[in-house]
Amino acid sequence: MKSLKQLFERLENLYDEMVDIRRHLHENPELSFHEVNTPKYIAEYHRNLGHEVRTEVGGRGVVAKLIGGKPGKTVALRADFDALPIQEERDVPYKSKVDGIMHACGHDGHTATLLVLAKVLNSMKEDLEGTIVFIHQFAEEQSPGGAIEMIEDGCLDGVDVIFGTHLWATLPTGEVHYRSGAFMAAADEFRITIQGQGGHGAQPHLTKDAIVIGSQLVTNLQQLVSRRVNPLHSAVLSVGAFEAKNAFNVIADTAKLTGTVRTFREDTRDLMEREMERVTQGTCLGADASYTFDFIRGYPAVMNHEQETMFLAEVAKDVPGVENVKETEPEMGGEDFAYYLQHVPGTFFFTGAKDPEWEIVYPHHHPKFSINEKAMLIAAKTLGAASLTYLNRKTTETKAAVNAN
Amino acid sequence: MKSLKQLFERLENLYDEMVDIRRHLHENPELSFHEVNTPKYIAEYHRNLGHEVRTEVGGRGVVAKLIGGKPGKTVALRADFDALPIQEERDVPYKSKVDGIMHACGHDGHTATLLVLAKVLNSMKEDLEGTIVFIHQFAEEQSPGGAIEMIEDGCLDGVDVIFGTHLWATLPTGEVHYRSGAFMAAADEFRITIQGQGGHGAQPHLTKDAIVIGSQLVTNLQQLVSRRVNPLHSAVLSVGAFEAKNAFNVIADTAKLTGTVRTFREDTRDLMEREMERVTQGTCLGADASYTFDFIRGYPAVMNHEQETMFLAEVAKDVPGVENVKETEPEMGGEDFAYYLQHVPGTFFFTGAKDPEWEIVYPHHHPKFSINEKAMLIAAKTLGAASLTYLNRKTTETKAAVNAN
Amino acid sequence: MKSLKQLFERLENLYDEMVDIRRHLHENPELSFHEVNTPKYIAEYHRNLGHEVRTEVGGRGVVAKLIGGKPGKTVALRADFDALPIQEERDVPYKSKVDGIMHACGHDGHTATLLVLAKVLNSMKEDLEGTIVFIHQFAEEQSPGGAIEMIEDGCLDGVDVIFGTHLWATLPTGEVHYRSGAFMAAADEFRITIQGQGGHGAQPHLTKDAIVIGSQLVTNLQQLVSRRVNPLHSAVLSVGAFEAKNAFNVIADTAKLTGTVRTFREDTRDLMEREMERVTQGTCLGADASYTFDFIRGYPAVMNHEQETMFLAEVAKDVPGVENVKETEPEMGGEDFAYYLQHVPGTFFFTGAKDPEWEIVYPHHHPKFSINEKAMLIAAKTLGAASLTYLNRKTTETKAAVNAN
Amino acid sequence: MKSLKQLFERLENLYDEMVDIRRHLHENPELSFHEVNTPKYIAEYHRNLGHEVRTEVGGRGVVAKLIGGKPGKTVALRADFDALPIQEERDVPYKSKVDGIMHACGHDGHTATLLVLAKVLNSMKEDLEGTIVFIHQFAEEQSPGGAIEMIEDGCLDGVDVIFGTHLWATLPTGEVHYRSGAFMAAADEFRITIQGQGGHGAQPHLTKDAIVIGSQLVTNLQQLVSRRVNPLHSAVLSVGAFEAKNAFNVIADTAKLTGTVRTFREDTRDLMEREMERVTQGTCLGADASYTFDFIRGYPAVMNHEQETMFLAEVAKDVPGVENVKETEPEMGGEDFAYYLQHVPGTFFFTGAKDPEWEIVYPHHHPKFSINEKAMLIAAKTLGAASLTYLNRKTTETKAAVNAN
Repeated sequence: MKSLKQLFERLENLYDEMVDIRRHLHENPELSFHEVNTPKYIAEYHRNLGHEVRTEVGGRGVVAKLIGGKPGKTVALRADFDALPIQEERDVPYKSKVDGIMHACGHDGHTATLLVLAKVLNSMKEDLEGTIVFIHQFAEEQSPGGAIEMIEDGCLDGVDVIFGTHLWATLPTGEVHYRSGAFMAAADEFRITIQGQGGHGAQPHLTKDAIVIGSQLVTNLQQLVSRRVNPLHSAVLSVGAFEAKNAFNVIADTAKLTGTVRTFREDTRDLMEREMERVTQGTCLGADASYTFDFIRGYPAVMNHEQETMFLAEVAKDVPGVENVKETEPEMGGEDFAYYLQHVPGTFFFTGAKDPEWEIVYPHHHPKFSINEKAMLIAAKTLGAASLTYLNRKTTETKAAVNAN
Repeated sequence: MKSLKQLFERLENLYDEMVDIRRHLHENPELSFHEVNTPKYIAEYHRNLGHEVRTEVGGRGVVAKLIGGKPGKTVALRADFDALPIQEERDVPYKSKVDGIMHACGHDGHTATLLVLAKVLNSMKEDLEGTIVFIHQFAEEQSPGGAIEMIEDGCLDGVDVIFGTHLWATLPTGEVHYRSGAFMAAADEFRITIQGQGGHGAQPHLTKDAIVIGSQLVTNLQQLVSRRVNPLHSAVLSVGAFEAKNAFNVIADTAKLTGTVRTFREDTRDLMEREMERVTQGTCLGADASYTFDFIRGYPAVMNHEQETMFLAEVAKDVPGVENVKETEPEMGGEDFAYYLQHVPGTFFFTGAKDPEWEIVYPHHHPKFSINEKAMLIAAKTLGAASLTYLNRKTTETKAAVNAN
Repeated sequence: MKSLKQLFERLENLYDEMVDIRRHLHENPELSFHEVNTPKYIAEYHRNLGHEVRTEVGGRGVVAKLIGGKPGKTVALRADFDALPIQEERDVPYKSKVDGIMHACGHDGHTATLLVLAKVLNSMKEDLEGTIVFIHQFAEEQSPGGAIEMIEDGCLDGVDVIFGTHLWATLPTGEVHYRSGAFMAAADEFRITIQGQGGHGAQPHLTKDAIVIGSQLVTNLQQLVSRRVNPLHSAVLSVGAFEAKNAFNVIADTAKLTGTVRTFREDTRDLMEREMERVTQGTCLGADASYTFDFIRGYPAVMNHEQETMFLAEVAKDVPGVENVKETEPEMGGEDFAYYLQHVPGTFFFTGAKDPEWEIVYPHHHPKFSINEKAMLIAAKTLGAASLTYLNRKTTETKAAVNAN
Repeated sequence: MKSLKQLFERLENLYDEMVDIRRHLHENPELSFHEVNTPKYIAEYHRNLGHEVRTEVGGRGVVAKLIGGKPGKTVALRADFDALPIQEERDVPYKSKVDGIMHACGHDGHTATLLVLAKVLNSMKEDLEGTIVFIHQFAEEQSPGGAIEMIEDGCLDGVDVIFGTHLWATLPTGEVHYRSGAFMAAADEFRITIQGQGGHGAQPHLTKDAIVIGSQLVTNLQQLVSRRVNPLHSAVLSVGAFEAKNAFNVIADTAKLTGTVRTFREDTRDLMEREMERVTQGTCLGADASYTFDFIRGYPAVMNHEQETMFLAEVAKDVPGVENVKETEPEMGGEDFAYYLQHVPGTFFFTGAKDPEWEIVYPHHHPKFSINEKAMLIAAKTLGAASLTYLNRKTTETKAAVNAN
């Protein structure tokens, strides 16, 4: 396709701008639900391109629209723009200027990628058969996230398909990882307090030992994954904290357990919540103790649609710079891109962003986290190619391509 | 006391008769609740002595009364006479003639002891200040036992004190073991059936795994003794059987646990029953399973009365043949002598019956169980001395003796 | 493809023969490793067709070869022919004539399918570009199975690809279920004996309670799936039997646990075996008890090759009678087809064989098990179409088809 | 005995002084191992009476000797004098003047009792047949305590018998509680650290979950009391603290358990230490984790000698103000009086010190703890009567009295 060649060339020409934008954002990070200047910056950029721009979408989101010269379908591309409460520890010229806040997950790169891609697509708009919606999302890092409100506020109206990517610092630059179906897990939190009855360590019969009850509960909870979850449907239940700090000669009055549950299916998730409470109830009943049980749902699982995922994988194979398109195992981490996929077809994928020269790879959320900026170019090309290919082909072709899989 | 000297001499003179009686009974054992000839034999013996005899007391018991020449208090002495469903393995001239039934607990010796003692006391009756009641009890070996019915049927009417002993094959002949308070434990049985939901070993999520639930329950039950029972009040809970036999690739539908609980106090016993059911309920609730729970009470604990116990211990010290009167630790086995002590003061003690020449000591209920017959003489002397001393002294003396403790 | 049309028509014409053969085999079932007449019957059938036949392959297997008129690749098709030690409970004219033995898994149908397919393919041999190997396997039902020995004995020599199917009575006739990668699980058995020290239920301190230790072990084993297995890699560990049967007032000397482990990956399987023994060792060490641990490996997981699986799925879509070609979830049951796939590429799939008129569906290995005989025709057509398509196309085409996925 | 009447009268006459001394000490509490003015004060008091005084015995102890006018045996009486790091919350004229330090266990009363008793016995010394040693002990509240060093330093040299009492605020004034054998428990501390391997809450297979291992250990430890300790020998094991505080989505690297073990017999104590480590080792081995295990022994059990205990109980019955002499159950708390009883015969008992007018009784070590000062008089009379009775009687009498028991 001629247009793809044009797309790739123009993106390459604007690579320096992409880097500049990313570094500017990196120096000026803003926490989830507290983004002020970032959305202003984004809106301004799109307005300069002449895009139709809505701000404060669902709170602090920005949605820009590029309407092509020809009628057609509507593709949405999403990038998130919030940062994390982490003190940057790398010493780079564009180090975060805000104490204790840092782009430690690559959202600066996501935004730079999407903005420059918007500029290039804008330059090709006359031949564009349809519309492209740029969804700049706030607050991805903190549940309940920005997506849910932005969707409520109409950001997906009229959208036929959505694509999104995460720059992934632990995968080599040049790799694109995709997966149909469960791609990232639902990540929920639970908090259980066991209320026993404290007392002297020498008089257990006058107490209800919250540590013994809590220990029993931890053990019993392990049996949910091994006995109640379909062995073909993954689930994880981890108790991260067991708190019952008393003098050595005391029997604990209360014990606090907090932890996380990861699942890929809503029915598994519901089952886990329901069975966890049942086990807690039974364990406490057996010990004549009481409890509080809170299950705080984080993002649902990212469930990629099969056709769109296979489509994206096909497209990625021909993107310059992409050396390896791999089907991957699901990630247990969470992403609120999940919500978009509950409304429209689409897919979320990883764009490898490990610098081949690194000796140590710092994972996401690490104070020394970084990305290979070249990966932004690959991400932009892949998202752009997917958009153009999707819009420029006939519906029947799409179907055929899908059937081949 | 002159009379004691007489008692001891006359018993010694009748030792051969004692042995003959015991061997006769040994050859003709009868099972608990099926005693026919043994009570007939006993009643005949007492009738020959001219005692007032009641038969079929509470079912199959025999109660004989020796009324002394002078007025006074009433002492009861008890011996049990049932045998066990065990095939004797020793080859002795007086071996059991009944297949599969055997006096493997020494009740033959208890009866011989009491009968000959009755004969001797009868010979001293003119000087006897009071009455002696000989309680020959059926069915001690099998709960609910004969004592409870015999008491109901009046065997303790008018009785001021009761004494009883067990010939104890694992203690040296010449030793008398006593203990005030808890002497033998309450021995209860429990049966728990866990009703889960069976299925294929590869599909745990469609089942409720009764083996996992039962294992959890066994573990949880262990915490009753360690956490809910007063550490100063002994208790034992043992699961003796865990039955869930299926093919290796099946998940168990049910699991059956049976076991025993031993306690010394009624409040501990009640607590164990109540808490066991609570733990069972909680464990099954947590696993969404159901259960049946049966707690079958055996005999209560034998709780010796302090004054009568110390009195017996004092008396025993001067019995010829007794070399050692020892305060002992409680036994975890059960005895329905416990019921008599719930109605009248008294004490139950062990008379050592180990033969010094044995190389191997076979415990009670063993197919090779035996007793040193000499121990019968010591038992008879001790019970006789206790009876005479009790009846012949003034009430105030008793009090003084007790105060000294 | 013209040849496919011919294939389908000729198979339909021979449907009655297929039914006859199946019913003949059904009446005359033979147990695994005891097959005598069945392999004779099969060999005879192939010899009559003029095929090159090897008998007693790996023991009791039969391998027949159809060499096409043109040079080409070699396709192997496999059918198993052993029966089960089950007493048939259905009353049909062709009911098993052997007491206690029955074709309760459909292997009679597999064999009939393959024989008639061989006849049809033979009739088309002039145009056949390559060779077809018919592998008739003995002893699939009983580990270690016949496959491993037949492979050893050369049944796969020169084979380029292998296809096999299982008539599946719980899936509707007309459905074909395929899956790339893990299709059926490795099914292993374990046997653990805990050697504690028995004793009286009232004296736990003199014992090592095998029931308590066993219960702890059951609980601890549950944590392998929940904590040590990668949550994305399925595993099941089920204890099917817990045997410790004693009198209620005894403490158990030994406890026997037997159960099954199901996995899809060899590394998970190795991990389970290794960690199970570790947990057993630790649990027994903590209780000062000893143990024996046996892990008896059954068949490995059936791992379908991706290209051949997708190829088969494509082919199946155009088979007359096939209404639905579905990607399925893996089955937790085992199959020794797994071994063939460790040596050559290929795929194993399910051919739905539920009769639409059944009110109750009896599962495989049930005394009332049956199949819809029409499903044999579908199986034969699918295997035949896969063989012809595979042989008649150019290598490059295959590659292209695969690339599309 | 005439002398007892004199003793009681003189003590009553000096009750006001006893109160003054106690209140003076209450105002000026000193922590264990930091006592300076208290021992000075005590030594001064004894010197004024003309007693032979040794200071800095074993560190900070004071030992005074009263030599009677006639030859005889030697009786030791012990009182402890250290205070606790507790901020007094009662508002009394004699409230502690030291911030954060308080006599919250009645040692002020113990000392006042012993000093005034010394003065009275001194006034009777001409008729005294033997010697009385007053042991004023430092640092009872804090392990390893002062007793062990004072004994090392000779405080028991030449002593025939020792008596001591604790004013017990939860028992009614007028009651004296005694017990032969185990009276107060050995109180030990344990600290276990489980070293697993931390990680992300979604990746259990890459970790060794210290919370799961710790929970298993808590559960397993409960089985020591229920399965390995003789049910007739009390033991308590309580885990007082379980510390593993992490973010909810983390798997714990380490877990820290601290707790206490209470026992009455040295063999039970040794068994608990040994078996705890065994269980810890086994649990960690099964989970491939490592651990540290520390068992820090506190005071041994107070084991009262039978003869001296029964003697004290007899003496107490005739003490004016004593209304009830009761045999009591053992206390699970610790006392380093235990060490004295490992060297010489003697007994430790409780003197009820609850004020009948209190509506709420604050237990020992409570910021509002108090004693009924009248109890000091009863304690002084009992200790004094025991000393005089012991010294004034003939050895043979003692023996006889003991034999009666």
